[in-house]
Amino acid sequence: MQIGLIGLGKMGGNMRERIRRAGHTVVGYDRNPELSDVGSLSELAERLDAPRVVWVMVPAGAATQSTVDELAGLLSPGDTVVDGGNSRWTDDEKHAEQLAAKGIGFVDAGVSGGVWGLENGYALMVGGDKEHVDRLGPIFEALKPDGPYGYVHAGKVGAGHFAKMVHNGIEYAMMQAYAEGWELLEKVDSVENVREIFRSWQQGTVIRSWLLDLAVDALDEDQHLGKLRGYAEDSGEGRWTVEAAIDNAVPLPAITAALFARFASRQDDSPQMKLIAALRNQFGGHAVESNK
Amino acid sequence: MQIGLIGLGKMGGNMRERIRRAGHTVVGYDRNPELSDVGSLSELAERLDAPRVVWVMVPAGAATQSTVDELAGLLSPGDTVVDGGNSRWTDDEKHAEQLAAKGIGFVDAGVSGGVWGLENGYALMVGGDKEHVDRLGPIFEALKPDGPYGYVHAGKVGAGHFAKMVHNGIEYAMMQAYAEGWELLEKVDSVENVREIFRSWQQGTVIRSWLLDLAVDALDEDQHLGKLRGYAEDSGEGRWTVEAAIDNAVPLPAITAALFARFASRQDDSPQMKLIAALRNQFGGHAVESNK
Amino acid sequence: MQIGLIGLGKMGGNMRERIRRAGHTVVGYDRNPELSDVGSLSELAERLDAPRVVWVMVPAGAATQSTVDELAGLLSPGDTVVDGGNSRWTDDEKHAEQLAAKGIGFVDAGVSGGVWGLENGYALMVGGDKEHVDRLGPIFEALKPDGPYGYVHAGKVGAGHFAKMVHNGIEYAMMQAYAEGWELLEKVDSVENVREIFRSWQQGTVIRSWLLDLAVDALDEDQHLGKLRGYAEDSGEGRWTVEAAIDNAVPLPAITAALFARFASRQDDSPQMKLIAALRNQFGGHAVESNK
Amino acid sequence: MQIGLIGLGKMGGNMRERIRRAGHTVVGYDRNPELSDVGSLSELAERLDAPRVVWVMVPAGAATQSTVDELAGLLSPGDTVVDGGNSRWTDDEKHAEQLAAKGIGFVDAGVSGGVWGLENGYALMVGGDKEHVDRLGPIFEALKPDGPYGYVHAGKVGAGHFAKMVHNGIEYAMMQAYAEGWELLEKVDSVENVREIFRSWQQGTVIRSWLLDLAVDALDEDQHLGKLRGYAEDSGEGRWTVEAAIDNAVPLPAITAALFARFASRQDDSPQMKLIAALRNQFGGHAVESNK
Repeated sequence: MQIGLIGLGKMGGNMRERIRRAGHTVVGYDRNPELSDVGSLSELAERLDAPRVVWVMVPAGAATQSTVDELAGLLSPGDTVVDGGNSRWTDDEKHAEQLAAKGIGFVDAGVSGGVWGLENGYALMVGGDKEHVDRLGPIFEALKPDGPYGYVHAGKVGAGHFAKMVHNGIEYAMMQAYAEGWELLEKVDSVENVREIFRSWQQGTVIRSWLLDLAVDALDEDQHLGKLRGYAEDSGEGRWTVEAAIDNAVPLPAITAALFARFASRQDDSPQMKLIAALRNQFGGHAVESNK
Repeated sequence: MQIGLIGLGKMGGNMRERIRRAGHTVVGYDRNPELSDVGSLSELAERLDAPRVVWVMVPAGAATQSTVDELAGLLSPGDTVVDGGNSRWTDDEKHAEQLAAKGIGFVDAGVSGGVWGLENGYALMVGGDKEHVDRLGPIFEALKPDGPYGYVHAGKVGAGHFAKMVHNGIEYAMMQAYAEGWELLEKVDSVENVREIFRSWQQGTVIRSWLLDLAVDALDEDQHLGKLRGYAEDSGEGRWTVEAAIDNAVPLPAITAALFARFASRQDDSPQMKLIAALRNQFGGHAVESNK
Repeated sequence: MQIGLIGLGKMGGNMRERIRRAGHTVVGYDRNPELSDVGSLSELAERLDAPRVVWVMVPAGAATQSTVDELAGLLSPGDTVVDGGNSRWTDDEKHAEQLAAKGIGFVDAGVSGGVWGLENGYALMVGGDKEHVDRLGPIFEALKPDGPYGYVHAGKVGAGHFAKMVHNGIEYAMMQAYAEGWELLEKVDSVENVREIFRSWQQGTVIRSWLLDLAVDALDEDQHLGKLRGYAEDSGEGRWTVEAAIDNAVPLPAITAALFARFASRQDDSPQMKLIAALRNQFGGHAVESNK
Repeated sequence: MQIGLIGLGKMGGNMRERIRRAGHTVVGYDRNPELSDVGSLSELAERLDAPRVVWVMVPAGAATQSTVDELAGLLSPGDTVVDGGNSRWTDDEKHAEQLAAKGIGFVDAGVSGGVWGLENGYALMVGGDKEHVDRLGPIFEALKPDGPYGYVHAGKVGAGHFAKMVHNGIEYAMMQAYAEGWELLEKVDSVENVREIFRSWQQGTVIRSWLLDLAVDALDEDQHLGKLRGYAEDSGEGRWTVEAAIDNAVPLPAITAALFARFASRQDDSPQMKLIAALRNQFGGHAVESNK
């Protein structure tokens, strides 16, 4: 089948390639003319036969919103837009309503796979009406990994991004789990081979996983990670997961701990611990460390 | 080679079988005569040629201590004892010293594998002097999974149980990660297929793991887990992991959150939340729920 | 001076009384005619001399919004509206802009004090332009406690509600602190007089506080709190505090722990712990408790 | 009455003074001859009339143990030893048994008060048999604050130190509560007067406390705490509180969060966050910060 694909960066570019390898026609658009198949979104719309399917793969927030706005003007009733970016699930319903007013369908797709996706396939979590989701069937089939897994129609509009968001929240806590264990093992003198302990866990244990495999790869490159700073960004989905939990009165202590650990890792000096130090000084005359 | 094996329960019995399948001779002892190859520990000691190797696979604490005590009297200089149970790593050094006073070597082995171990092999994390560990080589080879992983000489005496303990701590937090994600997905109306979302994650995602596979198996048996109570025991290693972290001033927020969630799950009514309710009542006249 | 006061419930009614005791004129409006001094908001507006000051003391969200909407139509340039309810601080800027378009000033006031406020005064945290805040001076003076404390101009529009929100977040964690300590003391056999321990702390200790005094009052009424369920609602500000922290990448582990403990207290059976139980069952054949 | 007092440092020296002011006789011993009233513990024992009362006020652990050992040899049946240091409560039972074998009574006393104790009195939490505790009555009366509070017989041997330990655990979480709130307020632009917000809270609010008063004092000295590093030691009792909670399966999320925040504050670079960074790099090609 034919599909328009907007956003041909690291993710979008590889996805175009994987869809084409499956025998489909992709008309790609990117602001960077060297990557783009067409000169504009209107040219992209013209190049596709109706009913059109257009996959948006641009940064969440303003870039996605302006793309949806433009597509609302260019597309026709019966066309379908897929948002495959990292949009917050609460945006999906707005986009679906905006497009539905023009008779255009909307599907949200959470996409996992990173740099391995081109070869291994992309895990897809999809939300939307069955009618619209079904139109994308061949594309989802092309993108997903071979085998029985890696694709789900998760529910109504927004459910795809919600499922992907929760996936990332779980990922935060899993990474934190390995990281806590690693630090504790590295700290204790009688333990001499932390990297080899991690390697041994790759088989026969309860905690074997792809993330564990990656940890071993990382330790093989730099056994004690001395080249790295203990500093981690967060990408939005972790925050949204905790916010969704708060909205729904669901306790998420481990995922939240992982998020807060990242926040703290980005502080050169912790403001809150200054107040702790100040209080200790006030009531106990405890020694505190001063900035010079 | 020849080995004595004390404790032929679910774990020990299968381990005897796996070692025998590899062509070694196992003299097993269990308090239950129906499981036991010999009538007593002294008979076990007599049946083995010197230098003997004896693997202890009994409950941690008093049972392991009394077995070590008895072996200290029965064995001879040059023999080696392996503690493959779930002993706290701080016990290992005591046992090693007690046995070293008699010229007997000591090795601690953390063993993972559960009911799958017989067929898939047991992941082994081993601590002790190289001299003693090397004597066990063929047995470790027999027990471990096929392939390059599943075995590590983690360090000095205690390092094997320490590594296994941290493994279990990581396991707590990983399980908590999936559990938090599952609850949040189940809570939100637009998400309709939580079980299928979990299934889809088994390929192409960052969070694929053996625990995820098990979660899908469990959801296949009981889609919304309506047959289970939200109640979880803890087995000691989680507690010890947090205590080891405190001793070493290592922050373990996610693992500790997982441990505390288990504690809370076993309370019918939370005492601490009674005080919260009482305080709210005092200062705000907030409505509180009363026990009848 | 003269002030209009909208919302004469438990808080608003007492505030009217305290302002009148200070010699000011209060024209109060409430939907309940038995409480109200006037029949309508337009009558309230008529009864006040320009430039008018109107204090809104109604539930946050829809009720506050509709009151602001109505006042925007009834008031005149130079008048000032104060929102003294529990509005989310992000609403304040919207209300300020909406009223500024009509030349009407806006001040937000976080109010603490509960049932003790009438006699002891209300702690006030105020946000807004100095020009508008200053007009309210005599009213703030009437409401605040005697003495040097209990009033602050916290910053720009929204800062008053933000400060009150953080106050409540801190309150959550302080209550949780005492509650955790109380549960631990009650659990240990050698400790025999938990209530008296709490009472003793009221003097000479680092943790003496008004909340501690309230805890002692509660324990005097019901020594082991056997009449209460361990169940606690949350009122919004705790959630907003954590959300504000997430927006600002500030780690709030203790306040968040307190919030999550309340969430968990309201669950009869924890969904997430069902998945923990299911996983333990899958990999270990651990006994789990079943619902009948 | 007459009392021996061992350890005349900052705490012990002031306590000697406060007991003397109440009209009692104190024979003080310190390793530092300039502080000491006697040249040795045996001289101290000789100077006291039987039955003797000796208060030990030396560092917990080895110093306390060796003092108890020496007193066990010097004192006589019917004498009483009080451990007023910061001993772990699990040591108390050992000391009580050791001394009981010689017919010597034992009382443990948790003491709070710091540098204010001389003037304001020391809050005392006491454990031990009523018979031994009662002998100390006049001394407890001299040390405690005036007024109805500040003293409790908390329970059996160990209960005094246990209650003091929990007091410190609560203190950790309360300090953390204020610290989190302070950081959040300092972070947000619309809030302009964080110090004045804290000051305003000292009256009429739910969170007024002595710790809040101290926080205001600290902010008056250094408004944004720019002279301090965000670095906090921990003194043992916080760790022991969490360990006691783990032993008793009591969830302590807020107190533990406060403890872990202190651990993290003392790390220049977080090892666990290095692994997070490494994993992000492996699966996503995320930019990471490298050490030079």
